[in-house]
Amino acid sequence: MLQQRKPITVGDAVQRVMEYAFQEKKELVSLLQAHGRFLAEDIAADHDVPAFDRSPYDGYAIRSVDSQGAASENPVTFTIVGEIGAGYVFEEEVCNREAVRIMTGAPIPKGCDVVVMLELTHTFEENNQMYMSIKRTFEAGTNISYKGEDVQKGTILIEKGQYINPGVVALLATFGVDQVPVFRKPIVGVIATGSELLDPSDSLQPGKIRNSNAYMIMAQIERAGATVKYFGKFSDDINLCIDVVKKALEEVDILITTGGVSVGDYDYLPAIYEAIDAKVLFNKVAMRPGSVTTVAARNGQLLFGLSGNPSACYVGFELFTRPIIRKAFGNKQPHLRREQAVLGADFKKANPFTRFVRGIASYEDGQLVAVPSGFDKSSAVSSLAGANAFIVLPGGSRGYEKGMQVAVLLLEDLQGSEWPWDNIKKSYK
Amino acid sequence: MLQQRKPITVGDAVQRVMEYAFQEKKELVSLLQAHGRFLAEDIAADHDVPAFDRSPYDGYAIRSVDSQGAASENPVTFTIVGEIGAGYVFEEEVCNREAVRIMTGAPIPKGCDVVVMLELTHTFEENNQMYMSIKRTFEAGTNISYKGEDVQKGTILIEKGQYINPGVVALLATFGVDQVPVFRKPIVGVIATGSELLDPSDSLQPGKIRNSNAYMIMAQIERAGATVKYFGKFSDDINLCIDVVKKALEEVDILITTGGVSVGDYDYLPAIYEAIDAKVLFNKVAMRPGSVTTVAARNGQLLFGLSGNPSACYVGFELFTRPIIRKAFGNKQPHLRREQAVLGADFKKANPFTRFVRGIASYEDGQLVAVPSGFDKSSAVSSLAGANAFIVLPGGSRGYEKGMQVAVLLLEDLQGSEWPWDNIKKSYK
Repeated sequence: MLQQRKPITVGDAVQRVMEYAFQEKKELVSLLQAHGRFLAEDIAADHDVPAFDRSPYDGYAIRSVDSQGAASENPVTFTIVGEIGAGYVFEEEVCNREAVRIMTGAPIPKGCDVVVMLELTHTFEENNQMYMSIKRTFEAGTNISYKGEDVQKGTILIEKGQYINPGVVALLATFGVDQVPVFRKPIVGVIATGSELLDPSDSLQPGKIRNSNAYMIMAQIERAGATVKYFGKFSDDINLCIDVVKKALEEVDILITTGGVSVGDYDYLPAIYEAIDAKVLFNKVAMRPGSVTTVAARNGQLLFGLSGNPSACYVGFELFTRPIIRKAFGNKQPHLRREQAVLGADFKKANPFTRFVRGIASYEDGQLVAVPSGFDKSSAVSSLAGANAFIVLPGGSRGYEKGMQVAVLLLEDLQGSEWPWDNIKKSYK
Repeated sequence: MLQQRKPITVGDAVQRVMEYAFQEKKELVSLLQAHGRFLAEDIAADHDVPAFDRSPYDGYAIRSVDSQGAASENPVTFTIVGEIGAGYVFEEEVCNREAVRIMTGAPIPKGCDVVVMLELTHTFEENNQMYMSIKRTFEAGTNISYKGEDVQKGTILIEKGQYINPGVVALLATFGVDQVPVFRKPIVGVIATGSELLDPSDSLQPGKIRNSNAYMIMAQIERAGATVKYFGKFSDDINLCIDVVKKALEEVDILITTGGVSVGDYDYLPAIYEAIDAKVLFNKVAMRPGSVTTVAARNGQLLFGLSGNPSACYVGFELFTRPIIRKAFGNKQPHLRREQAVLGADFKKANPFTRFVRGIASYEDGQLVAVPSGFDKSSAVSSLAGANAFIVLPGGSRGYEKGMQVAVLLLEDLQGSEWPWDNIKKSYK
């Protein structure tokens, strides 16, 4: 009955999972819906920005040569020959001592090479003609935003796989991408297991707990950018469970179960994996919490068997499932972002397994410092709410002390890491 | 025609806006919809977690006293008197040399004070009775998760105004909050101004540009957590504009216009504010980009007149509008999170106004370093896509050099700051 499980390292486990990474299909969404999605194509500039020499200010467009000799005691006067608002083009060429009233964003009229800000001019009328005078000289190019100075036509501005933030939206709008190619969101199914689980709306009963894992995981799936499909709770009948899993696999891209992966008699997952011919990639990882995390694959589809303990479940998702979701978006840094931090508390007890302590990473004068966010057991739920990082304490024969350099994995970060695992080992050997 | 505008400091401007801060009404959403919202009530633990002494592992529950004397050469044998899965209660009291097979999460039977992990036991059968033997002693309390060790009943776990992340969702589920009180999302209206604006789906035309600001701002509104209502582009007829603004104000909590706040002849906003009896809180801020940012109020409702330049528009939203949205969620740190960083590039040219350079904040060995994300003009659109921070360079008579300590405001952060402005001044005076 009791199988001996052989633990593998976290890096190895992640690598085995990543062999099943896949890329989602493209779909088009309107620009208004694109924020928060991931681009499915490189976006190149289809024109220069600005597309024409334009005025960054309100003022008067003139020829620099005409300003020569202007001074406080020697104002130079220009005839105002027209006015040009943003969106309009002044068609004639501007000549000697002529000025055109120009608004922010309007194209520079032919002949002009300076915009004098409105504040530096004096306007007056004589015989039904408007004039403008200035009291200083201007160099050619003053206050001109040149064609292409921001972006040159053909530049690849945003690469496939990039997260669409508000700045990216601005670029997409600028280049006329009103139907945005994004990666479809993978559908991640969730099934909860455990006879002890009550729904959040149920009253407490002796020996039972409310099902927090399924709801937590669904929020984690959303945070990672995927779509959730909830299949509720497993029945106690293993044959029914097998049917539910088979059916769920037809409706989702990835399937997560919470609980049922320990070595207990009621832990059905190993039997289910066997029954549906899924290949178990690993069923023991040298990590705390979450050492029983199990991942299996069937016809290329991943089944994540996360622990039933809240903290272990949370960690298992972020380490193993999140990168598969991000990779489906063509993202080149699908893993949690790894950074170095100063440890803000002692962890003197050595542990043979690598620990992922739920922590708070904050800054002290710009230096990242990480402290545990609360009660640190795999069953803990309270430490998750405040956590924005995992503190990575590699397994070994010694503990860790306040002030030591440690790796942290940031949870609420959009950037990610390409591969945080090798380095973790390296840093500590 | 040309009014002289008096610039005020950014801190003063933000303060004037924050006097109009308001708190949204509460609404209930299902737990599945709660991720990403802000809690509208403190959440206290309605029971201990764990709610009962429970087993963190699969194994056997025994009395520690019965393990005394057990050793490799002297195994101690227990009679297995029952088995208990998670969710069930073992009703009898466990006596001398009795053991109960126990699963992860199950309540500890009366009398027991140790759980021996399955791996450390040996089971066998004799005369139709199952037995279990161990080869070492265990201290009382070994492998027991005690009632209340994670959370004690009555503890306030999550405060009103807190962002609901996956860990918070887990807590809400644990405490049976299946209908979650959250703050309603404020509705933020957006109107674009400018005769030069084309829709993103339009072909380019001489002198015109595509409307990137409105789409960018809508994504920024979403990122801040509010709901967008887009009213399209202003007409060229000021009377029609006035009607649109009046009508929009009836449908939204906050109204944003982009463009039309400069001193140009076609900049309608000042006239509109006057026509609708809105009080202008300021129309010039000592900042770059975005010095023309104008904010007005009418019957307690805020009208944000953001610049028509993309970078200026972006900065104006994040500094002035975002905190109003976050404050509507009862959030205590509604402003962009301010941290200290090492400047990664020279900015030698002094500027009398405080500059907000669009930048990338990254870590070098855990130390925050900020470099500009690209072309730095108020009209730039390319530098926004890569930016995750503003580098704050206070105005004055000197420039800044690589390696200096500067303040940064983080754009993609969930934590925020209570009031980043006083310190900025202090740090540099």
